[in-house]
Amino acid sequence: MKEIDISRVIIEEYSRRLSEYLENDVVIVGAGPAGLAAAYYLSKAGAKTTMVEKKLSIGGGIWGGAAGYNVVTFEDKDILDEIGVTTKKQGQLYTADAIEFATALAYKAKQAGAEIFNLTEAEDIVLKDEIVRGIVVNNGAVRSLGLHVDPFCICAKYTIDATGHPAELVGMLKKSKPELFPQQLQEYFMNVETSEAGCVEKTGEVFSGLFVAGMAVCDVYNLPRMGPIFGGMLKSGRKVAELIKTKLEI
Amino acid sequence: MKEIDISRVIIEEYSRRLSEYLENDVVIVGAGPAGLAAAYYLSKAGAKTTMVEKKLSIGGGIWGGAAGYNVVTFEDKDILDEIGVTTKKQGQLYTADAIEFATALAYKAKQAGAEIFNLTEAEDIVLKDEIVRGIVVNNGAVRSLGLHVDPFCICAKYTIDATGHPAELVGMLKKSKPELFPQQLQEYFMNVETSEAGCVEKTGEVFSGLFVAGMAVCDVYNLPRMGPIFGGMLKSGRKVAELIKTKLEI
Amino acid sequence: MKEIDISRVIIEEYSRRLSEYLENDVVIVGAGPAGLAAAYYLSKAGAKTTMVEKKLSIGGGIWGGAAGYNVVTFEDKDILDEIGVTTKKQGQLYTADAIEFATALAYKAKQAGAEIFNLTEAEDIVLKDEIVRGIVVNNGAVRSLGLHVDPFCICAKYTIDATGHPAELVGMLKKSKPELFPQQLQEYFMNVETSEAGCVEKTGEVFSGLFVAGMAVCDVYNLPRMGPIFGGMLKSGRKVAELIKTKLEI
Amino acid sequence: MKEIDISRVIIEEYSRRLSEYLENDVVIVGAGPAGLAAAYYLSKAGAKTTMVEKKLSIGGGIWGGAAGYNVVTFEDKDILDEIGVTTKKQGQLYTADAIEFATALAYKAKQAGAEIFNLTEAEDIVLKDEIVRGIVVNNGAVRSLGLHVDPFCICAKYTIDATGHPAELVGMLKKSKPELFPQQLQEYFMNVETSEAGCVEKTGEVFSGLFVAGMAVCDVYNLPRMGPIFGGMLKSGRKVAELIKTKLEI
Amino acid sequence: MKEIDISRVIIEEYSRRLSEYLENDVVIVGAGPAGLAAAYYLSKAGAKTTMVEKKLSIGGGIWGGAAGYNVVTFEDKDILDEIGVTTKKQGQLYTADAIEFATALAYKAKQAGAEIFNLTEAEDIVLKDEIVRGIVVNNGAVRSLGLHVDPFCICAKYTIDATGHPAELVGMLKKSKPELFPQQLQEYFMNVETSEAGCVEKTGEVFSGLFVAGMAVCDVYNLPRMGPIFGGMLKSGRKVAELIKTKLEI
Amino acid sequence: MKEIDISRVIIEEYSRRLSEYLENDVVIVGAGPAGLAAAYYLSKAGAKTTMVEKKLSIGGGIWGGAAGYNVVTFEDKDILDEIGVTTKKQGQLYTADAIEFATALAYKAKQAGAEIFNLTEAEDIVLKDEIVRGIVVNNGAVRSLGLHVDPFCICAKYTIDATGHPAELVGMLKKSKPELFPQQLQEYFMNVETSEAGCVEKTGEVFSGLFVAGMAVCDVYNLPRMGPIFGGMLKSGRKVAELIKTKLEI
Amino acid sequence: MKEIDISRVIIEEYSRRLSEYLENDVVIVGAGPAGLAAAYYLSKAGAKTTMVEKKLSIGGGIWGGAAGYNVVTFEDKDILDEIGVTTKKQGQLYTADAIEFATALAYKAKQAGAEIFNLTEAEDIVLKDEIVRGIVVNNGAVRSLGLHVDPFCICAKYTIDATGHPAELVGMLKKSKPELFPQQLQEYFMNVETSEAGCVEKTGEVFSGLFVAGMAVCDVYNLPRMGPIFGGMLKSGRKVAELIKTKLEI
Amino acid sequence: MKEIDISRVIIEEYSRRLSEYLENDVVIVGAGPAGLAAAYYLSKAGAKTTMVEKKLSIGGGIWGGAAGYNVVTFEDKDILDEIGVTTKKQGQLYTADAIEFATALAYKAKQAGAEIFNLTEAEDIVLKDEIVRGIVVNNGAVRSLGLHVDPFCICAKYTIDATGHPAELVGMLKKSKPELFPQQLQEYFMNVETSEAGCVEKTGEVFSGLFVAGMAVCDVYNLPRMGPIFGGMLKSGRKVAELIKTKLEI
Repeated sequence: MKEIDISRVIIEEYSRRLSEYLENDVVIVGAGPAGLAAAYYLSKAGAKTTMVEKKLSIGGGIWGGAAGYNVVTFEDKDILDEIGVTTKKQGQLYTADAIEFATALAYKAKQAGAEIFNLTEAEDIVLKDEIVRGIVVNNGAVRSLGLHVDPFCICAKYTIDATGHPAELVGMLKKSKPELFPQQLQEYFMNVETSEAGCVEKTGEVFSGLFVAGMAVCDVYNLPRMGPIFGGMLKSGRKVAELIKTKLEI
Repeated sequence: MKEIDISRVIIEEYSRRLSEYLENDVVIVGAGPAGLAAAYYLSKAGAKTTMVEKKLSIGGGIWGGAAGYNVVTFEDKDILDEIGVTTKKQGQLYTADAIEFATALAYKAKQAGAEIFNLTEAEDIVLKDEIVRGIVVNNGAVRSLGLHVDPFCICAKYTIDATGHPAELVGMLKKSKPELFPQQLQEYFMNVETSEAGCVEKTGEVFSGLFVAGMAVCDVYNLPRMGPIFGGMLKSGRKVAELIKTKLEI
Repeated sequence: MKEIDISRVIIEEYSRRLSEYLENDVVIVGAGPAGLAAAYYLSKAGAKTTMVEKKLSIGGGIWGGAAGYNVVTFEDKDILDEIGVTTKKQGQLYTADAIEFATALAYKAKQAGAEIFNLTEAEDIVLKDEIVRGIVVNNGAVRSLGLHVDPFCICAKYTIDATGHPAELVGMLKKSKPELFPQQLQEYFMNVETSEAGCVEKTGEVFSGLFVAGMAVCDVYNLPRMGPIFGGMLKSGRKVAELIKTKLEI
Repeated sequence: MKEIDISRVIIEEYSRRLSEYLENDVVIVGAGPAGLAAAYYLSKAGAKTTMVEKKLSIGGGIWGGAAGYNVVTFEDKDILDEIGVTTKKQGQLYTADAIEFATALAYKAKQAGAEIFNLTEAEDIVLKDEIVRGIVVNNGAVRSLGLHVDPFCICAKYTIDATGHPAELVGMLKKSKPELFPQQLQEYFMNVETSEAGCVEKTGEVFSGLFVAGMAVCDVYNLPRMGPIFGGMLKSGRKVAELIKTKLEI
Repeated sequence: MKEIDISRVIIEEYSRRLSEYLENDVVIVGAGPAGLAAAYYLSKAGAKTTMVEKKLSIGGGIWGGAAGYNVVTFEDKDILDEIGVTTKKQGQLYTADAIEFATALAYKAKQAGAEIFNLTEAEDIVLKDEIVRGIVVNNGAVRSLGLHVDPFCICAKYTIDATGHPAELVGMLKKSKPELFPQQLQEYFMNVETSEAGCVEKTGEVFSGLFVAGMAVCDVYNLPRMGPIFGGMLKSGRKVAELIKTKLEI
Repeated sequence: MKEIDISRVIIEEYSRRLSEYLENDVVIVGAGPAGLAAAYYLSKAGAKTTMVEKKLSIGGGIWGGAAGYNVVTFEDKDILDEIGVTTKKQGQLYTADAIEFATALAYKAKQAGAEIFNLTEAEDIVLKDEIVRGIVVNNGAVRSLGLHVDPFCICAKYTIDATGHPAELVGMLKKSKPELFPQQLQEYFMNVETSEAGCVEKTGEVFSGLFVAGMAVCDVYNLPRMGPIFGGMLKSGRKVAELIKTKLEI
Repeated sequence: MKEIDISRVIIEEYSRRLSEYLENDVVIVGAGPAGLAAAYYLSKAGAKTTMVEKKLSIGGGIWGGAAGYNVVTFEDKDILDEIGVTTKKQGQLYTADAIEFATALAYKAKQAGAEIFNLTEAEDIVLKDEIVRGIVVNNGAVRSLGLHVDPFCICAKYTIDATGHPAELVGMLKKSKPELFPQQLQEYFMNVETSEAGCVEKTGEVFSGLFVAGMAVCDVYNLPRMGPIFGGMLKSGRKVAELIKTKLEI
Repeated sequence: MKEIDISRVIIEEYSRRLSEYLENDVVIVGAGPAGLAAAYYLSKAGAKTTMVEKKLSIGGGIWGGAAGYNVVTFEDKDILDEIGVTTKKQGQLYTADAIEFATALAYKAKQAGAEIFNLTEAEDIVLKDEIVRGIVVNNGAVRSLGLHVDPFCICAKYTIDATGHPAELVGMLKKSKPELFPQQLQEYFMNVETSEAGCVEKTGEVFSGLFVAGMAVCDVYNLPRMGPIFGGMLKSGRKVAELIKTKLEI
């Protein structure tokens, strides 16, 4: 019966991929702009890369542009050109369609070889000998319903927290090692100039094996937020990929 | 202040596009596989095409594959090749990654020139002289909250109901003109062979100016459902595009 | 890493079982007393039997006894003796502990070889050439959240609707074939004597390939309800197993 | 088609106004009695004034009077006379109809030239060089649904927090600069005499560029609450307008 | 204690007004544009008029303009001029600010002498000798919570159903006297030209003592809807006032 | 340990009473004014009477008076005098305090010997040989949570449906025997004169073994509703008690 | 029209009482066992006493006995004899029916002259010159819905917090005067012997003008809880009445 | 009537058991793997053992395996062999079916003589003379609804907190005696090796009369979590049973 053939190839293909990607070079949590950019650059360089996203759809905060006006802005367009997004020069800024941007970025990451498990939520990190070795995940729907069900693990040489605001993985680590993270109160108001620059500058490894990228960087370092301008997100994703590629010697 | 420049270009770009796309050759409701395929083929042929989607993200039922196993299946791969989706032959079937499929399809539709307004919900049709002339839309968030707010209109020479199951636009028409639609009870159980074929065959104009495509076809004609096999959806989208292109003489 | 070994054996074992049990002699929907009894007797006789239950835990309405007083009653004790449940004679009735009864029944069905997929919801039937050939299922958590995700199929030579009240699978069939089912209004009030007997008597095939057992029988035939007495449920489960064993010639 | 003419003039008029009012002399958050009074006096004096209100309707806590008895009270009636509200002397107090008061105040603010964006929620402040330069806003319905969507900015020379209790803008500032605000515990019980006076007296600038008016004053300075007597609210709104007019030299 | 003086004048003033307005010339249900216009014209002519509104704020669907763009449109401006709303000619249409329109209309109705009880929900009509004699009301908050609390009555010579879509009072009457109301299916799609005219034309008495105005007219007569153009609403409110004034011989 | 003594006497006393009152002369569903009055008069006459109420507290719609104004009205005061409620003559009416009325009525019913199980919901009737023989009950909290738990039974020679609007027990019977109940549409608007009289007049046996009292009478016979006047409720309760006393020959 | 007579007497009677009881000797918050006992003894002694209760029904935690078994226990029966509750000696304890106890207590408090406003929630205290002078109240339904509506005041020479756990009025005071209340952690586990005694012993004035009674005493002084034994509650209510009667010199 | 016989035997049997098991050797809170194993070993040794579980069904986190893949893993199989669970060797691990494991464990505990009250929630502990003497329980449905109802007590010589994460009973004790429990921050990330060993090692008495077992041990001692491997849970349950058996001298 054709219905059973369909069911079988899906179950077998999915479980084969899930089993194959339990061990990775890199695991990325959160399929927003920074995570997707990191996945694109890492996969393109040959790193075995898995991304998990708790929602059904990927794209994070891209879809709605500003307040639902689905237009996004950038200060530069080199990464956009690379992934094939149409831009329009308007004054000092480039605008693009939010839907085109979200889908181009995810499509190019997939084409480059990244594995993405959506409806899959990271609920913890795996820490061995003071090194982050991967993540603990569960079914996103099971988590949303609050069902009492155990998780499983996905491990990686390097883990990227690209969960946006709040930085979820770093937050878990912070609870047990508060002394490692900045605690002083700083400004956290919108300020495009400083946030775009700072977010890229501070992108990097925050604990052995754990990197942070995108808005999660702003959250960890109390940087200002930036609003519907996405250049910093892309550059942060590219930078974290560069840092890990160096570690992986690829 | 850069924040104001960003805000202004977004507001102006969005309202310029919204105003420009109030009048169209074709308006498509629902950004699932059939709607996106129709948008791709119509835009590629030069039809001025606008799509509205009530959710923030596009893709409809593609993302979850089957039961959350994010793999989708097809019987043919010609359209997938055309839009650049990686496929894998498994027995009689082709499998593809659900996320790659969703993003490739939307990306190619955007690249071809389709305009997409997400977070925009069709709440009614515009009917003049017994011809469907477009749709009545509202903010998707306003609708979800049940706020008492009036809608506005987007008009088109041809309107496509690609809202899946239930066929929302046809449903509105059915309430006032029940005699035009099949009422006899038929089977509506999963049956891949008959649904894949029937869904394409019945794709077409159901009322002057109103076309139906994708799962909405199955809903209107009480055809069986098909499950996580998406070939019929793509072919239905391509067929509705062909039919309208003929009408538009493009 | 041991965590990955654990994750891998679970994923592989589960997907192997899921793939193996896509095709069955019998599929049973609903893991309440009648479904579990049917699973026990069918598996014991060697039928390849799969049961799906939308909730995380099995047992249906057994756990709460009456109004939460977790005691259940029976008129006979032969099946209870067979599955190893402690009973106590009280007047004309036998009482048992609801928790012991629920767990003994499920444990014995498992020991007999039945496969059970919990958190798995039947959302439709598979109908081919006017024969029910199995069920369409989805992740129970995905369904509870109302996510837009396609299902997959589990097929079987015979399908048992043991979903209780309302009889969910029969209800789907009824919508397309109302002429096949009793429509006259009858009493549906509690009446232990007539319901215990009637429920067993009417247990059987309601449509080619589809059997009904337990409270779902009462729902289909408008029989009275019975309350916290479970003998009829067990006998109905045993009877449906007998009928199918004859068909399977085992 | 007339429906499209209507849609187009609305979209264009709204986006023209939104774009025009991205830069202001004053932006006021919260359309309750103090905010509306401030908007009235500032607009009347020629200041370019924009008000945002997260709800669909304006008026804040005026509509319900006391416990839903829609009557409001005042100790003086000069401002009420100025905006055209009918009053009635009852003992030492003046009473007015809550609905007449709410609508008169908003109507007069609009007539005086104030721009009001309802269903628009302030989610942050804009802080540059230690000066508050405006607010970060989003669609009120998008925020109520918790959708992941970026905001945009509205800037102004002076910002007024008229959000009532709790003082939302000041609260954001307090988190990063707790040393600037009173922390000692004080009474916060109803006391009409001291609250009516104190609320007006303490109305003013709390941080460079950020003013506070109305109940938000009581919140910032731990003053007693006042109940359904609205004279202090009006005087606080008038006072903050006076202070800003002096700054603007108008 | 001043707090008690305030409490007492509010309770006494409210209960005096509530008691005084238990018997009226006209009671209007629903404080949207048509109801407020009717209240304005009736009160101006000297009719003792009470309006009830279930929400805390009045204005109905005016506040959000179209999809939250708070601009409203009109084909004529004579009534707007009369109530003092600023208009702007744009092509064939006049635009106005939604907030200014809502508040001006309510303010002028109040100034003309109308009594408005907000947070007061009509849950039934009073019917004596086949004549509608008023309405049965309850506390709006009590109703929203579904508390089991009895209502009280407000009577009037004439009752106006201005509840919009669906026409709530007419709906109650329809259930007991379905033969009096049109039952045939008609179009109910947006069509500004026919709805603006039809809504005014059909405004009138639908049952002895019960009048219908505004969108409730469209609901009763299955007329098309109109969207964010409010001229018909105002004219319908003015017309129902004229019809009742003739009956009242004022 | 004293805590265990307390627990034990409560459990034993409750289960003794529950067991004792499984068989009754009369079972009353709904502890509102009519049900409590019936319980009072039946118990006083010596009938073994049990009442079930799904909520924790008894009193039904008495507590809120009208719209939360906790005052109730009556045309006569003889029953009030009998149960010891303070009344006040105001015009043609007597007023009483709602709380005094609710508690006096329940207290006197208890003193007269009625057994009341609160948090106990009737979910069905027991019908044997076309005679109503009692009710099927469950834990009210279990029912509110929608837990899948079986009920138990309480039987009686006569059952009174005093569930108010809608008449829940009669509604169950109506579904299986629609021909026995009035179906024609009648008025159901507030009309004190006719409802007070009609409600008492129609109080009686509606099916063998099943009586109806109070607002449930109005529901069964489509009588007008009455609002916050409770004389008819008391008289209906007294009348149903008289009718059953005659049957019981007490 | 009789309906209007009924409405008018209710509105006038309620507002008369509400106005009359704005100033009292004593105001009690919370109509549970301690509050009702205090109301009974204070009213009986001639103190002008008003009680507010946020729910529709009074009785607090009495109705459900233990875990829904509606039986309550006592160590002594003198107060029960005084208010006319039937008791049964069982070992060292007296049992009573929870419903009889709740209604007898409230009925006797009403008969003694206490005024009770149900559906009326205390949201704050009135504090003048460091003396508690009464409470700030709102409509309970308005509060439950979170509507933005101002409260009004009820004043008294003495205020009793009988709100149970947590002690709501004391909690408000604690936030501004933490130094006045015990902060050290103590046991708060069930211990009938110590809690029954301690709750009565500690009953008294906790701040000038504010008394605490019943479970609120345990909350303020971190005493153990007591479970379904109500003697301490009654004695605490009687004691607080005695203390205030001495102050009032009655 | 048979329905009454059924109701009576259930009520009497349940209340007899509830009364009998108010005093125990051991009371266990939480029917997950550790609690059930403890119940099995204690009952087998002759200890009078009662277990309470707040949900309707028992089994805790067993049912869902990992992320809903209903397979569980173990490092050893001796306890599984003892309770009759089918295992499969896969590499270094044993797998078992989650449903078979859950039901076998509970069934064997029941067969060994353990009493289990499901839908029964522990809301507090009983502490006398600094010794934990049992628990305070309530109806689980009543608690879920937040109804205001008092609890009752179940006492025991020894109490086991097997509530998983968070350790509910220990948490109550911690609030009043924080100095007795570890407060320093430690890692709490998944680490199978250390958690499986540590959980068993730390199983034991944490306060006079109160033992902790299973995941609650990890919670109390900040040990790492372990995921879907259940050997530690069983061993912890067995160990706590051994410790208590020694105390009981059985």
